[in-house]
Amino acid sequence: MRKEARLIRWIFYIVVVAALFFLGFIIGWFAKPTEPNTANNNVSSKNLREFLDEMQSDQIREHLRKFTQLPHLAGTEQNLKYAEQIKKEWQEFGLDSVEMVPYDVLLSYPNKSQPNYISIVDHLGNEVFNTSLAEPIPDGYENISDIVPPYSAFSAKGQPEGDLVYVNYGRTEDFFQLQREMGINVTGKIVIVRYGKIFRGNKVKNAMLAGAQGIIMFSDPADYWAADVQPYPDGWNLPGGGAQRGNVLNLNGAGDPLTPGYPAKEYTYRFGLEDGVGLPKIPVHPIGFHDAIHLLKNMGGEIPPNNWKGALNVSYRIGPGFTNDFKSQKVRMNIHTNNQVTRIYNVIGRIRGAQEPDRYVILGGHRDAWVFGGIDPMSGAAVVHEIVRSAGKLLSKGWRPRRTIIFASWDAEEFGLLGSTEWAEDNAKLLQERAVAYINADSSIEGMYTLRVDCTPSLHTLVYNITKQIASPEDGEEEVSLYESWHKKDNWTDDRDAPRISKLGSGSDFEAYFIRLGIAAGRARYTKNKKTERYSSYPVYHSVYETFEIVEKFYDPSFRRLWAVAQVRGGLIFQLADSPLLPLDANEYADSLRKYTQSIKQLAQRHQDKMEIYKVSFDSLLSAVQNFTVAARDFHERLKTHNREDSLQVRIVNDQLMYLERAFIDPLGLPGRPFYRHVIFAPSSHNKYAGESFPGIYDALFDIENSADPEKSWEEVKRQISIAAFTVHAAAMTLTPPA
Amino acid sequence: MRKEARLIRWIFYIVVVAALFFLGFIIGWFAKPTEPNTANNNVSSKNLREFLDEMQSDQIREHLRKFTQLPHLAGTEQNLKYAEQIKKEWQEFGLDSVEMVPYDVLLSYPNKSQPNYISIVDHLGNEVFNTSLAEPIPDGYENISDIVPPYSAFSAKGQPEGDLVYVNYGRTEDFFQLQREMGINVTGKIVIVRYGKIFRGNKVKNAMLAGAQGIIMFSDPADYWAADVQPYPDGWNLPGGGAQRGNVLNLNGAGDPLTPGYPAKEYTYRFGLEDGVGLPKIPVHPIGFHDAIHLLKNMGGEIPPNNWKGALNVSYRIGPGFTNDFKSQKVRMNIHTNNQVTRIYNVIGRIRGAQEPDRYVILGGHRDAWVFGGIDPMSGAAVVHEIVRSAGKLLSKGWRPRRTIIFASWDAEEFGLLGSTEWAEDNAKLLQERAVAYINADSSIEGMYTLRVDCTPSLHTLVYNITKQIASPEDGEEEVSLYESWHKKDNWTDDRDAPRISKLGSGSDFEAYFIRLGIAAGRARYTKNKKTERYSSYPVYHSVYETFEIVEKFYDPSFRRLWAVAQVRGGLIFQLADSPLLPLDANEYADSLRKYTQSIKQLAQRHQDKMEIYKVSFDSLLSAVQNFTVAARDFHERLKTHNREDSLQVRIVNDQLMYLERAFIDPLGLPGRPFYRHVIFAPSSHNKYAGESFPGIYDALFDIENSADPEKSWEEVKRQISIAAFTVHAAAMTLTPPA
Repeated sequence: MRKEARLIRWIFYIVVVAALFFLGFIIGWFAKPTEPNTANNNVSSKNLREFLDEMQSDQIREHLRKFTQLPHLAGTEQNLKYAEQIKKEWQEFGLDSVEMVPYDVLLSYPNKSQPNYISIVDHLGNEVFNTSLAEPIPDGYENISDIVPPYSAFSAKGQPEGDLVYVNYGRTEDFFQLQREMGINVTGKIVIVRYGKIFRGNKVKNAMLAGAQGIIMFSDPADYWAADVQPYPDGWNLPGGGAQRGNVLNLNGAGDPLTPGYPAKEYTYRFGLEDGVGLPKIPVHPIGFHDAIHLLKNMGGEIPPNNWKGALNVSYRIGPGFTNDFKSQKVRMNIHTNNQVTRIYNVIGRIRGAQEPDRYVILGGHRDAWVFGGIDPMSGAAVVHEIVRSAGKLLSKGWRPRRTIIFASWDAEEFGLLGSTEWAEDNAKLLQERAVAYINADSSIEGMYTLRVDCTPSLHTLVYNITKQIASPEDGEEEVSLYESWHKKDNWTDDRDAPRISKLGSGSDFEAYFIRLGIAAGRARYTKNKKTERYSSYPVYHSVYETFEIVEKFYDPSFRRLWAVAQVRGGLIFQLADSPLLPLDANEYADSLRKYTQSIKQLAQRHQDKMEIYKVSFDSLLSAVQNFTVAARDFHERLKTHNREDSLQVRIVNDQLMYLERAFIDPLGLPGRPFYRHVIFAPSSHNKYAGESFPGIYDALFDIENSADPEKSWEEVKRQISIAAFTVHAAAMTLTPPA
Repeated sequence: MRKEARLIRWIFYIVVVAALFFLGFIIGWFAKPTEPNTANNNVSSKNLREFLDEMQSDQIREHLRKFTQLPHLAGTEQNLKYAEQIKKEWQEFGLDSVEMVPYDVLLSYPNKSQPNYISIVDHLGNEVFNTSLAEPIPDGYENISDIVPPYSAFSAKGQPEGDLVYVNYGRTEDFFQLQREMGINVTGKIVIVRYGKIFRGNKVKNAMLAGAQGIIMFSDPADYWAADVQPYPDGWNLPGGGAQRGNVLNLNGAGDPLTPGYPAKEYTYRFGLEDGVGLPKIPVHPIGFHDAIHLLKNMGGEIPPNNWKGALNVSYRIGPGFTNDFKSQKVRMNIHTNNQVTRIYNVIGRIRGAQEPDRYVILGGHRDAWVFGGIDPMSGAAVVHEIVRSAGKLLSKGWRPRRTIIFASWDAEEFGLLGSTEWAEDNAKLLQERAVAYINADSSIEGMYTLRVDCTPSLHTLVYNITKQIASPEDGEEEVSLYESWHKKDNWTDDRDAPRISKLGSGSDFEAYFIRLGIAAGRARYTKNKKTERYSSYPVYHSVYETFEIVEKFYDPSFRRLWAVAQVRGGLIFQLADSPLLPLDANEYADSLRKYTQSIKQLAQRHQDKMEIYKVSFDSLLSAVQNFTVAARDFHERLKTHNREDSLQVRIVNDQLMYLERAFIDPLGLPGRPFYRHVIFAPSSHNKYAGESFPGIYDALFDIENSADPEKSWEEVKRQISIAAFTVHAAAMTLTPPA
């Protein structure tokens, strides 16, 4: 029995050992996470907080001061120096890599030995009045050389002489009114228009189409003067001697005019100037309102309607030409600006993603400035600099984002978004396959009122979430979030009780990323009160008066507004790069599509009778949008029960979210604009600044009013509706389960 | 002490328990795989074997018999019936889903009450000879109705009358020779050309450009007759009464002529016929050689060079018109063919991928046939059917591929690849983002000699690997692999000691997938001995004599050749869908690019003098290819040490492999051909069947010979070289580490 007992005891021991082992094994098995890199949301939100808190307003002030000391026009030595300095500092901040990426693009400069100006000449050809050759230099900058005088970049050369015709803002509708209602033909005339309302390149194109032999643009105080504000340096209004520089291209997203579609590298084939994209064929020149008075005051012809009158003490007569007393006088433009292929430099910095290095979140803004760039673009570049510094700080503490972050300091934005577009062309395949989002960082401030955000609908929710985690920069709002402050000042009343977010138009570097490649994009800045401040842009826009001091003295003395903008832009890229599940919202896209469909339909219904005659129906588009709405809702419904532990399955739904914006790209482009390919958002053909929804349909409807062949125009409307319906259906498909 | 001993014993127990638990935990921890779905290569290759072995030649025979009983032209009741039958059987075989996908596309049929024919008319207008209205019906099919007579689909209607001019094969170079060397103008004439060498649509385009008012195409025995073979039914040669049907479009990849770029759905906007893509403006008609003799025998004019002479007992005089004796006779075409928007049906079946449902491997081939489709396409469709049956069998045993497999039975291929192109347009976004590869399954056999494979270079290695696992179908080669048999018969001597693989051209349904969307693609079939058998295609191509019996009696009595083709096609999709690491080879792409660059450079160097004058250099392209070669080598080098246990990291490199082909797509398309977008592979503009490498450069060089402005043409060559260099550089970038 003793042996038996021993045996039993041994069996008992073995069973216990085995059971314990088994217990341990089981616990070990289940204790181990399937997914080694499951992100911990608390860690992630702690990191976000730390990232935002690291940013400092004083640092932004110093970045801005440092990079606005000297003029740094694209293609100049000084802009290369700033690029090198940014590269060096980004490296010091701790980015994984920083490189200079050059392109050789067509730029345009005044001829230094033959200044541009406009004259009034008498019957003997004597110049009885000449416009100024430069703006009065602001205090403290007297010894600065290389301040480029106001000019229209890419103007044709020439010295046309003729009678002036005043055409208000030079919009399509202004020229229609001039030609059809007022019966004035501008063929062979020189057109004078005021700046504002639309992109200046569109004014130039309209003048060319109307047959003008030259065009002058002036800043009218009605459009560039805020009430009760002094001109710079005593306030932030545009002095009478100031004028707005700017390019006058009609690129429609082509980038470098000589290499459309391809990056402007050494080996790249270049078209001749005569085949370049968007180059105006007539001379163009900008002037300030002091000079404008001289050109306008003696004009003859009819008195225009009130909405054609600006705020100068002249009658705004239309012309052509001067009144009887001055009939023999003509206007002569003297333009000697040169086009020149010039090397530009983007600075590209990277933080390698830890888990998904092949997913890119991009923060890009330009560095080149017309002169000092105090607002445009350095108030944006200083903010990017601070975001890079802050990200570097986190990196040094061991953090690394899930996805790759790319920081870009673009060159030659002012010459047609060239640096950003060439880089997009150079990297198109990688971006198309890998880019999650592009956040733009041009000027951070254009007013002192509240936040302004323009972005794709799928970013709405993230923008709201981020702004709730940022403090209002306004005095007396210390306890208020940026979201609340913004909401109070700019509620989206028509549609919803939330801060207003607008559509993206164009005119800054997001264009190639959003409108050509279909990458989710957004921008944020501080802005004016649109309801009460009616001037265009901000008064000193593109003048020599955009200095560090105008920001420090007037726009943001505490630099808390720029700091808030830094946190918004930085917070967006942080969340896009680090959230395990991409923070993109397809339901918001659906809501927006419904709204846009209603409004384009309403626009068409102004011609209800014609719609019936030509059998134009929006049913297919409405049904596609309904289909998309259901697909988006179901997609987010499924996400709620989705397995977030399996990194491959998370990647699959993230890919659906990432590629949603891509689904709206039509590879064939919009009619006549091969590089504008976004079916939902693009600028109207009549104003690059204004983002239209369903731009193909919008443009076709716009053309109806002007059509010689209404049947053909309505056919185009129908074709565009069909393309929009197809595109929305295709986008809905991308959200359904993949097999 | 007793207490102490007990304590010690307890401590001992606890330590033992803890140690055991810990041991168990540790073993449990490490025993559990990190990656729940790590594919076991042995399991995978066992599954492949089982999949291949499941396929049976007798089954293929029965599938072919079943689907060749009745004519099933696209758009007919019978072709819909076969679609429904295929759908039903695929469901029974066990696919996860099968759906019918309809489109409404432009088709073209003869007018049943007004037959098409060609007459010789005398001076009174009497028809002294008429071509036959139909082919003699083969035995056993006498009671079949709905056999469409030979016609040229999409021919313009009309009854042009005039003198004949014989222009050999109707190639660009034939028309050049006619016009420049022989001095003959075909304006207002009716052109007669022999079939062969190039796609018939290119012949028609050339005739239109030359000003002809009609074109007749005939099958010359020199091109459609194999030596020592009887005409059908006693052999597989084309009888003299047989003629080749076919469409005469110049679509260049547009799909449905009325809805280029968009799927032809109910709501889709359709162009009017006058704006349709690629529709010929002149009447076109095909005839057999019995009829051709009557038209040719009395022709006058010069005797042509020997390479213009076919094998008929006529002198092949060029014309214009008949000899003196018959001078008053003219030729009249009587063409009443109608274009008609018609519903077509693709059948789409799916097996959902287990781990990556959002990765698609596609096996597609058409179902519509000109008549019975004994060879074209049902010898291909029967093979697809057997592959689906075999896959279903594996599914029923619990297997499921890693990725999604899509099977497609396309409609209306014969009318311009319409079914496959419309579906590609409909699903373009999904395919661009998710498609791994497209394997085409048109006719499985066109000869009795050996295997023929045309595919993208990245598939070379997989093709070799698969064919090594398949037995040769030839008698007496029971122990020989298909690879060895093929290698022996068609060695790639010039380049390497391996079986020859050719470039993809066009002319079948892979076109939209490969050339428009940039999806890796390939095709495989059994072929003739190209060195000894000089006829075009196979003699009965597109005639009523393509029956089940011609395959069973002559081409593949044992059905082992079709069986081998089934295993090749099936093996390719199996490995593409199931290998954890995608079996695509970037090094092979690099090797091919080097070869293509050398040969296009040699082509250009025929004009060495001009290259110097116009400063044309291939250096940028050579350097890009070198860059690509290094990137590919490094990529595969890194793969060797890549962590294959981490499914996310495997997905990342697989994405690089999948998107490699996409990198060669230029969204702007080739010049004048927006839907041909592959910079490396596309048909020449002069022959849709021939795949050229660097087609942009090739076409530009081709134009040099014919250029009125050589400087401009050389500029285009330079531009195309620059585009090619950029594209290859961009493709290299996609292979470098992603951040």
